[in-house]
Amino acid sequence: MRETADHKTLNSIFKPDRPFDIEKWLMRKHLALLGNPPITIVLWNGSAVSSPAGKPVGKVCISDRKTFLKLFVNPELYFGDAYSEGTLEVEGDLIALLETISRSTSAVSGNGLLSENLMKIISRPKLNSLLGSRDNVHQHYDIGNEFYRLWLDEKMQYTCAYFSSPSATLEEAQISKMDHVCKKLRLAPGDAVVEAGCGWGGLALHMARHYGAKVKAYNISHEQVLYARDRAKAEGLESRVEYIEDDYRKISGRFDAFVSVGMLEHVGPDHYQELGKVIQRCLKEDGRGLIHSIGRNRAKPINPWIERRIFPGAYMPTLREMMDIFESSGFSVLDVENLRLHYARTLGCWLERFEGAHDQIGNMFDQRFIRSWRLYLAGSIAAFTTGDLQLFQVVFTSPTNNDLPWSRAHLYTNSSR
Amino acid sequence: MRETADHKTLNSIFKPDRPFDIEKWLMRKHLALLGNPPITIVLWNGSAVSSPAGKPVGKVCISDRKTFLKLFVNPELYFGDAYSEGTLEVEGDLIALLETISRSTSAVSGNGLLSENLMKIISRPKLNSLLGSRDNVHQHYDIGNEFYRLWLDEKMQYTCAYFSSPSATLEEAQISKMDHVCKKLRLAPGDAVVEAGCGWGGLALHMARHYGAKVKAYNISHEQVLYARDRAKAEGLESRVEYIEDDYRKISGRFDAFVSVGMLEHVGPDHYQELGKVIQRCLKEDGRGLIHSIGRNRAKPINPWIERRIFPGAYMPTLREMMDIFESSGFSVLDVENLRLHYARTLGCWLERFEGAHDQIGNMFDQRFIRSWRLYLAGSIAAFTTGDLQLFQVVFTSPTNNDLPWSRAHLYTNSSR
Repeated sequence: MRETADHKTLNSIFKPDRPFDIEKWLMRKHLALLGNPPITIVLWNGSAVSSPAGKPVGKVCISDRKTFLKLFVNPELYFGDAYSEGTLEVEGDLIALLETISRSTSAVSGNGLLSENLMKIISRPKLNSLLGSRDNVHQHYDIGNEFYRLWLDEKMQYTCAYFSSPSATLEEAQISKMDHVCKKLRLAPGDAVVEAGCGWGGLALHMARHYGAKVKAYNISHEQVLYARDRAKAEGLESRVEYIEDDYRKISGRFDAFVSVGMLEHVGPDHYQELGKVIQRCLKEDGRGLIHSIGRNRAKPINPWIERRIFPGAYMPTLREMMDIFESSGFSVLDVENLRLHYARTLGCWLERFEGAHDQIGNMFDQRFIRSWRLYLAGSIAAFTTGDLQLFQVVFTSPTNNDLPWSRAHLYTNSSR
Repeated sequence: MRETADHKTLNSIFKPDRPFDIEKWLMRKHLALLGNPPITIVLWNGSAVSSPAGKPVGKVCISDRKTFLKLFVNPELYFGDAYSEGTLEVEGDLIALLETISRSTSAVSGNGLLSENLMKIISRPKLNSLLGSRDNVHQHYDIGNEFYRLWLDEKMQYTCAYFSSPSATLEEAQISKMDHVCKKLRLAPGDAVVEAGCGWGGLALHMARHYGAKVKAYNISHEQVLYARDRAKAEGLESRVEYIEDDYRKISGRFDAFVSVGMLEHVGPDHYQELGKVIQRCLKEDGRGLIHSIGRNRAKPINPWIERRIFPGAYMPTLREMMDIFESSGFSVLDVENLRLHYARTLGCWLERFEGAHDQIGNMFDQRFIRSWRLYLAGSIAAFTTGDLQLFQVVFTSPTNNDLPWSRAHLYTNSSR
């Protein structure tokens, strides 16, 4: 019998005098499955394997056999869990290492569309029914305003900022983002605006204070709504901004503008047509709308660790999938802007502040929590810098609205506000 | 037996002393099918019916019974044929009348998606295979450069212009369009550009002269390529611009930028993935692309008269359908702009010049041709002003290209060129 390469491998694995070969073989296999990113895997016993792809950007150190095997079974889920638990440690720059892995896996998955489709079926996100959405949102946004205050900007914007100049600070970029959104909506004094998913209420206050809008802002996060109402009162804007603790599906009234920044990720593609109907119902004939959402170039399920531990029920759509919102209700898409690198920079600012507040956060949460949030923030940076995630702002209006600006130049002057 | 409304109608139709009632009944039926636009239909015998929807914006005068019956069988096809033949005449403002009909029919068709889907199957456009495309394009673009010169701008741009200010002339707006495209592509001196479907070659010359690009421009219209080559020679740009009489599927080489203005309408949705593969093959890793195309908010077949008599093989896609080009090849969409009203104004300029050159065109073509082109131009204006048609400019790049501008402000300064 001709001895094949596989036959050789099997022989070497089962030789009793070379007890660690099976682990090395598994490590190599693992690296190959990831597309051979330039990293080193180090085991509890010092055994190490580096990718043949060049100088490693970092080391992944695994502290026990159980973690190692779990990683092999479902790397996308257990990498995050093991990192959070501390049974997996990264030596070197965490973001650079995650970027390297993201780049090599996307090169591999580009060839494996069948398995991606299979993944989609297997890893369906949690249902975003009225009750399901409330549970899902509660799990992420209601863990304490004090926590978020430590690393978000002072207006508490937990969405992609807009760095209109490279030297802008996070505070400036979050204000620019709000202005960019308001200018895209061409807000005018007296406009009635409805906001779906308003976070801690910063955008609604900004629209009322600087653009003279009257805003109804919906949110199902109890903690956020309480915070937002307090702020509106403190700023004397409670007569112009109403925060409503309810689901976007319950929006009532008719408005000049609809805006939603960072909520679509929690809606789920099964509900996009329903969202379109809600907008159609509440938008006046010449009304304008803007949806700002994380997205993708190609349909792909969310990373299962992020879905389970960070954002239950979340899904990042492609532009094609987003069109379900607009086409079924006959809206006309006027403008799409991709702000991918702005989100990488925003997340970079957050992570820096998060690390700076390590001791204070340590008084609130355990190390496992801190490590999982570090991984989530660093992993998101890597996803945006490597093009795994996108950030789309889509402006739309009714198909018969001819009150349209001749150019988008008004977005780039200071006179609009 | 209770006499119902329908029963009454039937009775009145078949009463021998009221011989014209069947025609009136058919006219009312026809108006109702169109969604009761405020128009009047007048028959050869003076019999007339107005829609109950208000003051008529114009009259449709039908000169014989055969035309009337044909119109009832397939109004979308025979309206155009009858108008061209002169057996149907419009009294009043042609554009306003077509706008009125477009508005009312789109309100009706919004409720009849099933029949639209059926329409899609029945009215499949002619195949855009390599040979099919050549035939289809020949039929429209090779009817004589002299004809187009009479009503296009001096650079012979037969695509939507960009009126960066409302007072711009057509000439200025066509130059602005070319600059807008070049700025979106961020063209730099020395860039290698490939253009798919270059018309009479104006954009390629503009990119070479004003942006220092080296351009390969493809086109399957023989007349246009000859004209374009002459112009390149006359302008001393033949070393920087090469016009190739071939199909976009035959593009070879690697480029910094891919551009296609007004060709996608002739590609057909069955070929979008193939087009994506062509672009992927020819674009460098950090290359940029722009596709400029007429589109729609909702999928719908092209008007059958336009498809048969004006643009064989044409199809106007939705943004969702356009995503087939980008998603399947893993491109990242950076920017989408909808220039719908710019096309209405462009067509308005063309129609005005077309009417002004009536006598010269009359020396080239018969009245039937002139009438059909008048209807095509006026009908297109109506389609853009009423939102039946859109104009999308989509900018894209590879998902790993991080050499992206922080904002689109550079599109709105004069310094880029």
